[in-house]
Amino acid sequence: MAKINRNYLKLPGSYLFSTIGKKVREFEASHPEAEVIRLGIGDVTQPIAPDIINALHKAVDEMGDAKTFRGYAPDLGYEFLRDVIAEQDYRARGCDISSDEIFISDGAKCDCSNIQEIFSTDNRIAVCDPVYPVYVDSNVMAGRTGDYDPESGRFRDVIYLPCEEANGFVPELPKEVPDLIYLCFPNNPTGAVIRKEELQKWVDYANENGAVILYDAAYEAYISEEDVPHSIYECDGARSCAIEFRSFSKTAGFTGLRLGFTVIPKDLTVEGEKLWPLWARRHGTKYNGAPYIVQRAGWAVYSEAGRKEIREQIAYYMENAKIIREGLKESGFEASGGVNAPYIWLKTPNGLTSWEFFDELLTKANVVGTPGSGFGPKGENYFRLTAFGSRENTIRAMERIREKMI
Amino acid sequence: MAKINRNYLKLPGSYLFSTIGKKVREFEASHPEAEVIRLGIGDVTQPIAPDIINALHKAVDEMGDAKTFRGYAPDLGYEFLRDVIAEQDYRARGCDISSDEIFISDGAKCDCSNIQEIFSTDNRIAVCDPVYPVYVDSNVMAGRTGDYDPESGRFRDVIYLPCEEANGFVPELPKEVPDLIYLCFPNNPTGAVIRKEELQKWVDYANENGAVILYDAAYEAYISEEDVPHSIYECDGARSCAIEFRSFSKTAGFTGLRLGFTVIPKDLTVEGEKLWPLWARRHGTKYNGAPYIVQRAGWAVYSEAGRKEIREQIAYYMENAKIIREGLKESGFEASGGVNAPYIWLKTPNGLTSWEFFDELLTKANVVGTPGSGFGPKGENYFRLTAFGSRENTIRAMERIREKMI
Repeated sequence: MAKINRNYLKLPGSYLFSTIGKKVREFEASHPEAEVIRLGIGDVTQPIAPDIINALHKAVDEMGDAKTFRGYAPDLGYEFLRDVIAEQDYRARGCDISSDEIFISDGAKCDCSNIQEIFSTDNRIAVCDPVYPVYVDSNVMAGRTGDYDPESGRFRDVIYLPCEEANGFVPELPKEVPDLIYLCFPNNPTGAVIRKEELQKWVDYANENGAVILYDAAYEAYISEEDVPHSIYECDGARSCAIEFRSFSKTAGFTGLRLGFTVIPKDLTVEGEKLWPLWARRHGTKYNGAPYIVQRAGWAVYSEAGRKEIREQIAYYMENAKIIREGLKESGFEASGGVNAPYIWLKTPNGLTSWEFFDELLTKANVVGTPGSGFGPKGENYFRLTAFGSRENTIRAMERIREKMI
Repeated sequence: MAKINRNYLKLPGSYLFSTIGKKVREFEASHPEAEVIRLGIGDVTQPIAPDIINALHKAVDEMGDAKTFRGYAPDLGYEFLRDVIAEQDYRARGCDISSDEIFISDGAKCDCSNIQEIFSTDNRIAVCDPVYPVYVDSNVMAGRTGDYDPESGRFRDVIYLPCEEANGFVPELPKEVPDLIYLCFPNNPTGAVIRKEELQKWVDYANENGAVILYDAAYEAYISEEDVPHSIYECDGARSCAIEFRSFSKTAGFTGLRLGFTVIPKDLTVEGEKLWPLWARRHGTKYNGAPYIVQRAGWAVYSEAGRKEIREQIAYYMENAKIIREGLKESGFEASGGVNAPYIWLKTPNGLTSWEFFDELLTKANVVGTPGSGFGPKGENYFRLTAFGSRENTIRAMERIREKMI
């Protein structure tokens, strides 16, 4: 008699973005005249840049010709892509990472959620609060978190690292030592960054305690200030304690193309076993590579023309971020983020809960954002807006907030 | 202190195709004049068909225009693709499967290896012997198989279903009742098929015993004979005991494009819990969809022009299969498969082991195939050849076998 994985039943019912979607659909149905502006889900709106589109067309043509057709990709991904990543994302920043430490995949979400598989189920994980739900949920499914406590909104066996105003939304080292530590900077949802000196403390802590840091750097392309590390490998000793995840989704608008990668240094060992061959085995057994045409598109991101185009795209979104940040401040809101990240983290006024503010913003200003409490209890009384809308919609949203929400 | 998933260490060292690759590279290095023909790994060689290439170009253009750009795909996949699949692959064959029971993914390999996650780790699995290694390896990683016994070449807690000459390479119902049963027809590696009456017995057995059949139908497009089911849902009662996997890799040459899907009927329950929401949750949490452009390519496979093109491509490979099958018989070999599948399963002559025959075929005829023993102990003394080469290479390979191997 087959038996299900009962850990799945521990996951609280509805998913944040489904609930938002449902509320918005209901509002639109009852207010057909309202033009709702979506600054909620972190999806991009700008099209893929022209040089990347050209690379895609060229690769599509190759797939249509027997002489240039490509079947199964190499397990780690095509060398042409891994080489430019190692060169431009790592060695150009003084990070000692080689091509064969890079595993190409179909996105950071998949890698972030699958990485836990190579670790034993009795590892104790630590996550920030608030946090991108995937880190926690993938561990719930694997049985690493214990039960959910609806009162605290937390899983019993997870170590939560509070990220709040008092610590500038950067967690402090925990008293209880975790085995696996998920960190994401620039942060989703708060838009906060970690300075190099601070990140170095985490690396030292992990090395001292035999912990592994799972570092999600999906938003590194949005960093505009000096002294904010783009990679954890800018810290001394990170090769012996850290795995890094990167994404093309927000860097180059690939949310619908699917491309990312994971870095596992070859000398990173746990209990005397290297992690690289474990992940290589998982990659080879349970995955079959990102499409050739998409890997070519990723490669074009690193060309001179591609780099210029994506810099302009990121500048466009960051101008949106500035409009939101400054607009909110002019309207009397407290807000942070949006300087090195596409997310603005707003404190709800008058002690409103995140969902109360969501409803008010939707009904009064017809603007959709994401309730902070959806990312964890410490996100309560906060609200996330994203810079991924069009310029026009971003400006209109801020005008409406100024007019209707004060 | 982090701990690794020690189940990974139970996997026997080297992977079948890496060993083959290494042997071939060594042979080519020491015999630079030899023109090695590869009929080993199951990768296609024909380019993507013209109408599918056109659909790809059109979708790429959409991604380059703000008005038609697509970001994150819907969790289950685009409706335009799920609708044509439900219509043409299922309802046209009298199978009661609806669009929202279809989950689009980046390939059957990923789905076949991930599906075990929604089941408890104390399920007992049954697999054919010989078998596509992914079913077993993904369960080893999850801790469902016990240790590997090098002497028998088997994992201690797995129920093996022998597929041999005596049973026409179709397994008999096991005495010990498994919880999860992996079946793959048309079969990789043997090329055997299961008749509808036989498959119905498995469906009845699963329903009687509360087992779930995980049915890999990746090669269904190669079926040429009547009375061979294309889908397990052609059998009565399959909706309450079976999950089906399909792939575009061999159907339309998508090994390098990555597209597949999984069917989970909404009424399929285990321990009173529906499996559909569990897989939906996994899909939504740990996966982010196949690229829009690739889903459009998949959609084009179902157009009238696309269908015609892929039928021609499959006919091309099946003509290769016939050349191999008949060539082998003329040369005095015993062989089966290759009628409803792109694989030919050859009995090694003179009691040679599979690897001995591999070496002989490589050194004498400069032809690469896959040792049957790589698929399990019952594959010993067998050898797999694939129909995925070019016509020219297939003919030359058979000439060489006739001249050098007799």
